[in-house]
Amino acid sequence: MQHRSRALRQAGRTLAFVPTMGYLHDGHLALMREGRRLADVLVASIYVNPTQFAPGEDFEAYPRDMAKDCRLAETIPVDILFTPDDRAIYADGCQTFVTPQDLAQRMCGLSRPIFFRGVATVVTKLFHIVAPHVALFGEKDFQQLTIIRRMVRDLNFAVDIVGVPTVREPDGLAMSSRNAYLKPDQRQAALSLSQSLQEARKQVANGETRADRIIAATTARIEAHPETAIDYIVIVDPDTLENVNVIDRPVRMALAVKVGTTRLIDNMPLDPNT
Amino acid sequence: MQHRSRALRQAGRTLAFVPTMGYLHDGHLALMREGRRLADVLVASIYVNPTQFAPGEDFEAYPRDMAKDCRLAETIPVDILFTPDDRAIYADGCQTFVTPQDLAQRMCGLSRPIFFRGVATVVTKLFHIVAPHVALFGEKDFQQLTIIRRMVRDLNFAVDIVGVPTVREPDGLAMSSRNAYLKPDQRQAALSLSQSLQEARKQVANGETRADRIIAATTARIEAHPETAIDYIVIVDPDTLENVNVIDRPVRMALAVKVGTTRLIDNMPLDPNT
Repeated sequence: MQHRSRALRQAGRTLAFVPTMGYLHDGHLALMREGRRLADVLVASIYVNPTQFAPGEDFEAYPRDMAKDCRLAETIPVDILFTPDDRAIYADGCQTFVTPQDLAQRMCGLSRPIFFRGVATVVTKLFHIVAPHVALFGEKDFQQLTIIRRMVRDLNFAVDIVGVPTVREPDGLAMSSRNAYLKPDQRQAALSLSQSLQEARKQVANGETRADRIIAATTARIEAHPETAIDYIVIVDPDTLENVNVIDRPVRMALAVKVGTTRLIDNMPLDPNT
Repeated sequence: MQHRSRALRQAGRTLAFVPTMGYLHDGHLALMREGRRLADVLVASIYVNPTQFAPGEDFEAYPRDMAKDCRLAETIPVDILFTPDDRAIYADGCQTFVTPQDLAQRMCGLSRPIFFRGVATVVTKLFHIVAPHVALFGEKDFQQLTIIRRMVRDLNFAVDIVGVPTVREPDGLAMSSRNAYLKPDQRQAALSLSQSLQEARKQVANGETRADRIIAATTARIEAHPETAIDYIVIVDPDTLENVNVIDRPVRMALAVKVGTTRLIDNMPLDPNT
């Protein structure tokens, strides 16, 4: 892959890159379609990265279906589907990590302390292998997108980062490979994430500016569903991810909730001016 | 610099890169001559990187002479001398660090706990800006060279790392910008570093295989000089930097010694087969 991407660059072609963990859904396909549009050659990777999972998380259980993924990638089409294995990516272990700091120490970082280190490290490795001009990440993983943007700036990567809006099921549930874990009644409870974010948007549209009131209403809506356990609900500055108390500018509302044993995340922009 | 290096690569030119902190001496010039030989275009940087100095270390005092450095670089000649300032390199701080682990937690890492994180981070940034095919580092900083080699492998940088043997003064003192700090009598005490490493090589040539005996003899030789304070003396595996007890294969002997307030390092290979 490294040689091939260098040869493509040398030939004057531009490369777009969509890194994924596979089990592709329409969210991934939206990233790929946007990548297709932005460069000559579209590279996508499928790699379930072990260093971003802590012991006890779902690394082994994470859903995989390479045959279906290949068929879906061909519909875009993806030019190069890069599917390395652990021996290729962590040939003899890894003693050098890319460590995001402030941005990684809040929200998902509190319950998943090694997660963003693993993400930043594998994205760095993949950027060095694929050498893309542009890389696409979903807004669904908003903290990840923010951390990758900051990493690219902090470490002077010559890669443009493009965020792509979250793709949702018709009923509003944010698409996620982990939705496959949900049983029918849990699927119903999971809807409370997007629904309560939509309600929060309505509160702001109706003039509410106090973050604590919005978070309290959201908490109540989600806790009304059985099998839910809130990890966090925050309203933050979209660049620094610092908590915002008064919504007097565009901010991001984000939440993480366990539904049964499945941890789901979602987020939406809140804008007092719309 | 980032645009220029991309344009050069696009035009099919190969780039060699020598990162330095300036106050150039013959050791740096040897790196540059080797870089000149290995690629079409030679880039050298001069940048005293603040993130590898701890509070109380010599960041402010570190010797600087840009005019002389420019003249010396022209003698090679260096094609592009990249001399960024802190605003360019750390435009709005840095929240993402490249963190070497095991290799950085011994030898110099014990007394300089943030040093190698700073080095790995700035080398990553410079690699992303300069985009070299090959980069050259001195064996004088043996632990740094080992950590950079490991970082390149761990993070899949497409950069070849070339180590260049230490250049010494006629009397054996390893060249270092920090030698400028030494007063005449300290200069004499500093000679004990290279001399005791040479004596260790003789011990091994005469059949000594026990690291502890060699380290004891070296300790005595250095402590015989006034104003010396040993930080460490080690005999290590050249790849893992783990201590070696029996010298039954090629190993590296390395030491760090304060002479007055100046901290000096040096190292040499020990090979029982020569």
